[in-house]
Amino acid sequence: MKMKAVGMYKALPITDESSLVDVQMTKPVPTKHDLLVKIAAVSVNPVDTKLRVAQNKMGISPRILGFDAVGTIVGKGSEVTLFHDGEEVYFAGDVTRQGNNAEYTLIDERLVGHKPVNLTNAEAAAMPLTTITATEALFDRLQIVSGKSILIINGAGGVGSVATQLAKLAGLTVISTASRADTVSWTKAHGADYVINHHEDMLIQLQKLGFRSVDYILCLHDTYRHFSFMEQAIKPQGKICTIVDLTHPVDMRVLKDKSATLSFEFMFTRSKYQTEDQMKQHDILEQATLYFETGQLKSTLNKVLTPFNAETLRLAHQTIEEGQMIGKLVVEGFDNDGK
Amino acid sequence: MKMKAVGMYKALPITDESSLVDVQMTKPVPTKHDLLVKIAAVSVNPVDTKLRVAQNKMGISPRILGFDAVGTIVGKGSEVTLFHDGEEVYFAGDVTRQGNNAEYTLIDERLVGHKPVNLTNAEAAAMPLTTITATEALFDRLQIVSGKSILIINGAGGVGSVATQLAKLAGLTVISTASRADTVSWTKAHGADYVINHHEDMLIQLQKLGFRSVDYILCLHDTYRHFSFMEQAIKPQGKICTIVDLTHPVDMRVLKDKSATLSFEFMFTRSKYQTEDQMKQHDILEQATLYFETGQLKSTLNKVLTPFNAETLRLAHQTIEEGQMIGKLVVEGFDNDGK
Repeated sequence: MKMKAVGMYKALPITDESSLVDVQMTKPVPTKHDLLVKIAAVSVNPVDTKLRVAQNKMGISPRILGFDAVGTIVGKGSEVTLFHDGEEVYFAGDVTRQGNNAEYTLIDERLVGHKPVNLTNAEAAAMPLTTITATEALFDRLQIVSGKSILIINGAGGVGSVATQLAKLAGLTVISTASRADTVSWTKAHGADYVINHHEDMLIQLQKLGFRSVDYILCLHDTYRHFSFMEQAIKPQGKICTIVDLTHPVDMRVLKDKSATLSFEFMFTRSKYQTEDQMKQHDILEQATLYFETGQLKSTLNKVLTPFNAETLRLAHQTIEEGQMIGKLVVEGFDNDGK
Repeated sequence: MKMKAVGMYKALPITDESSLVDVQMTKPVPTKHDLLVKIAAVSVNPVDTKLRVAQNKMGISPRILGFDAVGTIVGKGSEVTLFHDGEEVYFAGDVTRQGNNAEYTLIDERLVGHKPVNLTNAEAAAMPLTTITATEALFDRLQIVSGKSILIINGAGGVGSVATQLAKLAGLTVISTASRADTVSWTKAHGADYVINHHEDMLIQLQKLGFRSVDYILCLHDTYRHFSFMEQAIKPQGKICTIVDLTHPVDMRVLKDKSATLSFEFMFTRSKYQTEDQMKQHDILEQATLYFETGQLKSTLNKVLTPFNAETLRLAHQTIEEGQMIGKLVVEGFDNDGK
């Protein structure tokens, strides 16, 4: 049985109409821990655009991108125990497999959560990847402790918007960075106690706010560019976590002098390495669902594009690549919806 | 009032008789949180030799080195609350102040512990710096959890010998590295479950032992030289801690892909930055004293040199600089002892 999908054959600039194209794929069949999910909406993340312009390391053609998704379970493998047919779910996918820019997808149940009942499909599709990233960064890497201070560099982006909310829920003082009027107000609306401008001297701004240094830094922007600032701003024995590769070598002697910690967070580590604790991503999403349903966490959805096809996804990728996106961008509405 | 000390006037090779010289200093007077301690023994650590060959950043002449020490309290500042005159204490010092290669020294009480009653002066002097380093590395930086595995690179050195014991006490499986018959047996005697040779392919040796990767790595040797191995050997989401500066830039993309953590441990961070929690070093030493007195931890003392003077300290520095020292080296016995 065939299904519609959007895929890529080779790495091309997003302005090229061949960069992402409508394709027909074989509808997949679930085995073992896999759920077969009929997709209702997906969100586009920087990882989509990074993988699109990188060499196609999977060697599969066409390569289907798309990780964040929401949909309905329509089939399952023999070892599935956490879910039932017909349940609505959301998940952030697995980069080692074909993605979710398709009518149907397979996903390991251990990476899936129940969709919050009070969110629309678009609101829910916006959240899994950033929520898992922010949760892993704050709780697994930084191991944050209530009462401490955190600086979130790029507070208005997808991960920043949810990390700010989660850090506040955990009892931290949150200083986020933003540089435009709309990003500043977005960041404050998501709970930041203070907002400083990452285009101006951040050490001076921190000092004006009364912070000679901070206990934690979560870097959601160019790690190399901010490295020198971060090593100055981090408290002795403090912890820095980044989700962005260090693109150039850096001198770590100040971190050594301060007994500081540098952690990396990559949301796909658990699924890629099939870690024993990959079920933790199910737990994170279930916890987030509780937070959404009790109003403690809100969706960071900010833009919805339709219908779900290659042309729309190219526009979505282009928007993400411009790097000015506030919150999250979702694509929904298959061409044949309702037909 | 004058006292004897051993100091340096400029950075010289240890074979130069002027590198460390006998000097007369003014006996210091304790204020605030300071204890005045009459020194009975000191141990020499790599930090002594590193500071000796570095520029004299303190700008004090002569600079007195020597950090690990044991002695008796003979005076105290007005704010001291933890100790009484006449008590025997041990401590690892503070690099921002004059050191302990002297008849008398000042030390902030928050960095001091009661000397274990069952250890000789030499056995006790051997322990503070390495015990604090190992404890901070394992519990504050790596935040080790019982049941996991740790690789300790250079298990037979001062920090390695106590880290191995502490990691075993905490319920970890400990793989230490050593390369000579005497270091291998020393390391096993201090509790290592397995010993591998750091001059041969460590990944292959780990695999032969049944470890595809380890949860933690404590690097007590050239961080740069071992970096590529460590990023291969660390488990996804694992943690690496090093006490040695990264001397050359490294590529951290594998650590990013694994969501791994790199921590630095520098024992003098707390005192240098006057952190709010510097009292933790008092707690660490008091806990260690309990471990020593109940036989759960044993001194790693391996060599004692006497008498306490410049000539002996030059020999001690030379021994440490050769890099072959197993366990710890202590200097004791002032020329005027008993006079």
